[in-house]
Amino acid sequence: MSNSETLQLAKTLLERPSITPADEGCQQVLGDRLKSLGFELESMIFEDTTNLWARLGQGKPVLCFAGHTDVVPPGDPSDWSFPPFQPTEHEGYLYGRGAADMKGSLAAMIVAVERYLKQVDEPPFDIAFLITSDEEGPFINGTKRVMETLESRNEKITWCIVGEPSSTEQLGDVVKNGRRGSLSGSLSVIGVQGHVAYPHLAENPVHSAANALAELTQTRWDDGNEFFPPTTFQVSNIHAGTGAGNVIPGRLDIEFNFRFSTESTSTQLQQRVETILDAHNLNYQLNWKLNGPAFLTAQGLLINKVQCAIKRVCGYPTKLSTAGGTSDGRFIAPTGAELIELGPVNATIHKVDECVKITDLDTLTDVYQAILEEMSV
Amino acid sequence: MSNSETLQLAKTLLERPSITPADEGCQQVLGDRLKSLGFELESMIFEDTTNLWARLGQGKPVLCFAGHTDVVPPGDPSDWSFPPFQPTEHEGYLYGRGAADMKGSLAAMIVAVERYLKQVDEPPFDIAFLITSDEEGPFINGTKRVMETLESRNEKITWCIVGEPSSTEQLGDVVKNGRRGSLSGSLSVIGVQGHVAYPHLAENPVHSAANALAELTQTRWDDGNEFFPPTTFQVSNIHAGTGAGNVIPGRLDIEFNFRFSTESTSTQLQQRVETILDAHNLNYQLNWKLNGPAFLTAQGLLINKVQCAIKRVCGYPTKLSTAGGTSDGRFIAPTGAELIELGPVNATIHKVDECVKITDLDTLTDVYQAILEEMSV
Ligand SMILES: [Zn+2]
Ligand SMILES: [Zn+2]
Repeated sequence: MSNSETLQLAKTLLERPSITPADEGCQQVLGDRLKSLGFELESMIFEDTTNLWARLGQGKPVLCFAGHTDVVPPGDPSDWSFPPFQPTEHEGYLYGRGAADMKGSLAAMIVAVERYLKQVDEPPFDIAFLITSDEEGPFINGTKRVMETLESRNEKITWCIVGEPSSTEQLGDVVKNGRRGSLSGSLSVIGVQGHVAYPHLAENPVHSAANALAELTQTRWDDGNEFFPPTTFQVSNIHAGTGAGNVIPGRLDIEFNFRFSTESTSTQLQQRVETILDAHNLNYQLNWKLNGPAFLTAQGLLINKVQCAIKRVCGYPTKLSTAGGTSDGRFIAPTGAELIELGPVNATIHKVDECVKITDLDTLTDVYQAILEEMSV
Repeated sequence: MSNSETLQLAKTLLERPSITPADEGCQQVLGDRLKSLGFELESMIFEDTTNLWARLGQGKPVLCFAGHTDVVPPGDPSDWSFPPFQPTEHEGYLYGRGAADMKGSLAAMIVAVERYLKQVDEPPFDIAFLITSDEEGPFINGTKRVMETLESRNEKITWCIVGEPSSTEQLGDVVKNGRRGSLSGSLSVIGVQGHVAYPHLAENPVHSAANALAELTQTRWDDGNEFFPPTTFQVSNIHAGTGAGNVIPGRLDIEFNFRFSTESTSTQLQQRVETILDAHNLNYQLNWKLNGPAFLTAQGLLINKVQCAIKRVCGYPTKLSTAGGTSDGRFIAPTGAELIELGPVNATIHKVDECVKITDLDTLTDVYQAILEEMSV
C-alpha cells in the first residue's frame, strides 16, 4: 500500500475544511514547501479570498501550476460514508471533500516540483504556482484579480498547467485544451398589466414573447468544430405574474445562458438574440454578462510535451477535450498563456463520497514531473 | 336636494365597515325592514360568512332581489377625499366604500319593495331577498351555499334581479343578461433538471413547452356571438428555475385563465388545451378549476319587463351586455332562474373615492319599483 509523500500532503490539505472561499491555512502549508525550494511567495488577499503567487526564478519563460484550495460544501455529512473533512483511506481510495477537486492535484504538483528540482541544477524556465481559494465560489476575488495584478506589472505566464480533474476513466486519459465560453443574458419583456377579464386593456408579455422564446430555444447557433460541440442556449429562469390568478402580468423576466464554441463570438450571439427579439417587435430590456470567452489552446509546445509525458508514464495516449463547465483557465488563457488542464478522474467531484484512487496520486505526481522533464529538453 | 329614504338607508349601511367577509350588522338593518313587511327571515351562517334569505309568500313564482353587504378593502384611507366609512354627500354625490358596489342598490331594493307593497293587496308572485357578505371574497360560503341549501329543499328562484353596478354612463343604460364563464388551469411541464454546461443530460421544460405555449396564446378559441365577445386565454403566472444561473430547471409551472363565451363549453376548452399539449409530446400535469360557467339569460319575460321599466322611468333604452368580470349571478342562473343584473354606474367601484350620484339612488329605486309593477301586469 502506498504511503507516498503526495498522499501525506493530500491528507494534510483534506483535513482542513476550506469550504469556498475559505483557505483554512492550506496555502500556508503549500507556501512553506515552496519557500524551502527557494520560491518567492506573494500572498494576495482580496476581500474574503486568499491567493498565493509563488515564483522561482526571474526572467525566463514561466511554467505555472494553477489550482485552488477551496472546496464545494459537503452537504449533510451523514450522507457520507466517511466524515468529509477526515481523510480516510479505504480499499485503495482516499476519501474526503476535495480529494479529486483538487487538493490531490495540489499535493502532486508540489511533490513533482520538489523531485524535479533535485534532478536539475537550474531549470530552463521559471516555475510558478498560482493558488486561489475562490474557484468554487463567485470567482471575483480569485484568479481573475491575481491575473489582473500580474498583467498590471507585465508579468506573464508562458505555459500553464491547471490541476482540474480532467480525467474520465483513468488518469490522464483526457486533457482539457480549451473551454467553451459562457455568456448570460437577463431579459425583461415589458407589457401592460391588467385584469384577465379585460385583456383588450392589457398586453400580456408572456403572449408577446412566446414566438420569440420558441425561436430562441430552437435556433442552431453554430455547428461547433473539431474541438468544440455546437453552441448551446438554455433558459435557466423564467418568471411572470403577481401570484394572483386574475391579473395579467406586466413583465416577463427570463434568464438564459450560452455555452459557446469558438465558431461564435459573444458579440455575434448578442446581436443574433437582439435581432430575434426585434423581429418580434418586443419592448424589452436586456443585460448581458460575459462570464468567460471561449478559448482554445492550439496544438503547441506544451500540449506536445504533456502528451509525451502521459504516454511515457501511463502507457496510453491522451485525448484533448473542451467539454464541461468553466474553470479558472478562462482568466489565464486570454493573457496569451498556453494552457492545459490535467488532473484526477472527475467521477465523484461535487458529490458525496468524493474520492481519488491512491495510486493515481502517485501517477499524477509522476506525470507532472515528466512534464517538467519533457519541457527541459 | 334629495333626502330620500333610499339615501338615508344607504348611509346607514355605508357607516358599517363591512370589509369582506364581514357584514357588520348590515343584514340586521335590512332584515328588520323586511320583517316589518311580513317577510320570513332565515339567517344562513356558513363559516365566516353571514347570509340572509328572506321570503314573502309561499307557493307562487319567486321574484328575488340579490346582493351583497360586503365591500372590498378601502386601501389607505388617507388616499380618499372623505373617510371611506363615513358616508359623505358632496356636490350631488354620496361618497363611501360600497356606495356603488352595492349598498346603494340594497337600499333602493328595500325602499322599492316597501313602496310597491303599499300599492298592492297581494302581489302575483312571492318576493325574496338573497343577501350575502361573501361576494368580494373567496365566494365559497356565500351565494353558492345559499343556493345549494335552497336547491336541496327544492326552493326555486323564478326571476332574479342582482344589484351589481351594471350602468356605464347613466343609470340603467346597461343591464347584464349573462356573464362569460371563467375556467382556470394549473399546468406543470416536467423536464429533467441539470447543469447548463451539460444540456444533453437534462431536458429543459421551458424549451419543450415553448411551441405549445406559443400555440396556446395564438389560438382563436371561438368567435363569440351576438351576446358574447370571443373567448380569451391569458397566462397569469409562469415560473421555472432555481434562481441559479447555471441550473436547467426541472419543471415549468404555468397558470392560465379562460373567459369564455357560450360558443365554447369548459369541457371543450379543456380538451382543446390537452390536445395541443399532447401534440407537442409534453410530459405534464394539469389541474382545472371551473370558477363559473358562462350563462346567458335568453330574451324572456323579466328582460322585457326590465326594459319597459327603464324606458318608462329614465326615458331611454337600455343595452344588454355580458361583458366584465364574474358575479354571484353564476351561482343563481344555473338553477334555471331568469336573471339580470341592474345597478348604479360602475365608474368608481373598487377604487378610492367610490361614489354614487344621489339622484341615481332615487332613480334606481323608481326603476326597481317599476319592475315590480311591470311584473304584476
Ligand atoms: Zn476544481
Ligand atoms: Zn359587487
